[in-house]
Amino acid sequence: MSADDLLDAVTFDESGLVPAIVQDAATDQVLMMAYMTAETLRETLTSGRMVYWSRSRQERWVKGQSSGHTQTMQDVRLDCDGDTLLFKVDQEGGACHTGYQSCFYRRGTEAGLVADGEKVFDPDAVYDAS
Amino acid sequence: MSADDLLDAVTFDESGLVPAIVQDAATDQVLMMAYMTAETLRETLTSGRMVYWSRSRQERWVKGQSSGHTQTMQDVRLDCDGDTLLFKVDQEGGACHTGYQSCFYRRGTEAGLVADGEKVFDPDAVYDAS
Repeated sequence: MSADDLLDAVTFDESGLVPAIVQDAATDQVLMMAYMTAETLRETLTSGRMVYWSRSRQERWVKGQSSGHTQTMQDVRLDCDGDTLLFKVDQEGGACHTGYQSCFYRRGTEAGLVADGEKVFDPDAVYDAS
Repeated sequence: MSADDLLDAVTFDESGLVPAIVQDAATDQVLMMAYMTAETLRETLTSGRMVYWSRSRQERWVKGQSSGHTQTMQDVRLDCDGDTLLFKVDQEGGACHTGYQSCFYRRGTEAGLVADGEKVFDPDAVYDAS
């Protein structure tokens, strides 16, 4: 993937970020959405490892660095107005810090929000609580 | 779907918006991402017809109102931190104003961005250019 060609076509927002939708390459399940700076987008495209920008921590965020649940890029797409990215990835373990395969594990139902996603790991065992 | 339960759980950004990822219910293809206010989210949940907020026009945007390419909600999910929605919809015609089935019709390749999406309508014939 030519990083310069894609970076030139992306419109970053006023904070210098672009949203990235992340889909499982094997199942097409939407796993998460996160944000990238130009720098973390370039690092993702050149390394093949998904790297984001954490808005809450205001720092570079290598997905899976603490959990081991890394994501390897398989495909990248840009939308018509150039302000949203869509990635397909190979997901190691689960994408969500809660232990679910996808961050979208809660479904809106007549009975309210129901957690019906697939839990694939125990967050207490994965993240060091010390 | 209970609109109040979902609305209570959503965190809107400083502009009062929440991003909504839209997936085709039949194929799981990601069609687009758009934004909703509390009002257009409530209208979507109660009517079953996808209604967004146009950031460029700063107005309520009933998907398909001019093109006829409406979207009917089949499923709604909320992510772990409550700031992104994921919808599955039945898409009439194509989702993108360019005539492609998905707004993500451009793929990043070694040769640059390549339009490899499926074109399903002629935008000149659908949108009144007068």
